[in-house]
Amino acid sequence: MGGIPSVTTGDKIRVSEIFGPTIQGEGALIGVPTVFVRTGGCDYRCSWCDSLHAVDAEYRDTWKPMAPAAVMAEIEALSGGAPLMVSLSGGNPAIQPLGALIELGQGKGYRFALETQGSLARPWFGDLDMLVLSPKPPSSGMPVDWQIFNHCVAAAAEAKTVLKIVVFDEQDYQWAREVAGHYPDLAVYLQPGNHTPPPPDDDAAVVDQEGVDARMRWLVDRVIEDRWFTAKVLPQLHVMLWGNKRGV
Amino acid sequence: MGGIPSVTTGDKIRVSEIFGPTIQGEGALIGVPTVFVRTGGCDYRCSWCDSLHAVDAEYRDTWKPMAPAAVMAEIEALSGGAPLMVSLSGGNPAIQPLGALIELGQGKGYRFALETQGSLARPWFGDLDMLVLSPKPPSSGMPVDWQIFNHCVAAAAEAKTVLKIVVFDEQDYQWAREVAGHYPDLAVYLQPGNHTPPPPDDDAAVVDQEGVDARMRWLVDRVIEDRWFTAKVLPQLHVMLWGNKRGV
Repeated sequence: MGGIPSVTTGDKIRVSEIFGPTIQGEGALIGVPTVFVRTGGCDYRCSWCDSLHAVDAEYRDTWKPMAPAAVMAEIEALSGGAPLMVSLSGGNPAIQPLGALIELGQGKGYRFALETQGSLARPWFGDLDMLVLSPKPPSSGMPVDWQIFNHCVAAAAEAKTVLKIVVFDEQDYQWAREVAGHYPDLAVYLQPGNHTPPPPDDDAAVVDQEGVDARMRWLVDRVIEDRWFTAKVLPQLHVMLWGNKRGV
Repeated sequence: MGGIPSVTTGDKIRVSEIFGPTIQGEGALIGVPTVFVRTGGCDYRCSWCDSLHAVDAEYRDTWKPMAPAAVMAEIEALSGGAPLMVSLSGGNPAIQPLGALIELGQGKGYRFALETQGSLARPWFGDLDMLVLSPKPPSSGMPVDWQIFNHCVAAAAEAKTVLKIVVFDEQDYQWAREVAGHYPDLAVYLQPGNHTPPPPDDDAAVVDQEGVDARMRWLVDRVIEDRWFTAKVLPQLHVMLWGNKRGV
């Protein structure tokens, strides 16, 4: 299992990387200029993880404990002090103490979205501008604890909450339909999986973009065939434009 | 100039094509399952028009006058009677009598978005679920009448209204910044132009996708460089996935 932190370092956040601004490449905020704060450590280890450098404990030496004010200072430096959207991702950012950062940043006009699998509910989810719950489908090899997932939905009551589900195959797709059916009030974004995720040490590794595009077309066909017109289907635009390159 | 209709055929709508459902490939509704109604005829003739088969009077014999009920019947047949988003495009759909279609469809649960350059204001703009105003930048070769454009914004008071601006070069970009500055309340979507639009008779024509992608990356860089963080930058996803092919 990839690096569950048993103790956080005071109120420090374990940061794998901070980068941007660039546009958000996927989901509800696609196209929105964003600074990304990727935290280190995850309680999941999905078979097709595309961020192993922020998940696998082998890379924990590259994760830096930072106080919320230090993270915010770096976000402000990157954005030239102009408020924008901040995406908190990982790893699983929910295992980090992010409440203080969100409060600090929002006081300066920044907005915060967080993406998590929904395996840990936090009271500060309700402070987010957007919570992206991304439950992992069967192909991930990870089971979902739906009781905890529901706690996440409840904790985010005041935040705009959406579902984002990665789909690799028909089984994932059927699972996504079932999950979406249980949360009729949440907008659903489907995303074709990338079967050629970057090795953690090589972000120049080639993506089988034609294969991913074919999966995207298939996913559109499936949604249309089933008349699932409330689902939105979006690719990982950053991978289409920049490949597996990090920091864009 | 491409086919300004001086007389509409009763209350009939001049339809170039009705297709879908497929996902919307661009702008605020990207990824949303949609049926497209493309009307025939346009009061503009942009230098880089990608829909000449619905603009150039040479193709007017392919445009079919249809009663609103007939258009709605085709939308329902394509969607299997399940309500979804309908995109009214063209040509310039604003020159068609679309109010009755919108009323009829909304009564059945369908939603309607319309995309126009903003050269003609219609009272029924206010009934739309979304109005996409897409003023044409200098590279189009078309001048904008801002007084009429403002009438469009006013007419759409009750509709969600967004700006979508196609950008080919630095001049277009600077123009887009200026235009957006005049409409601070409207969300702005920037879209890199396709310099290899399909010839009207050949939808298998090859797109210079690498060139368009390079323009997309440049556009992201420009927005970030200027810290224009309220702009959203999105490509034509359908062209990335399906090329210039029609009907997807």
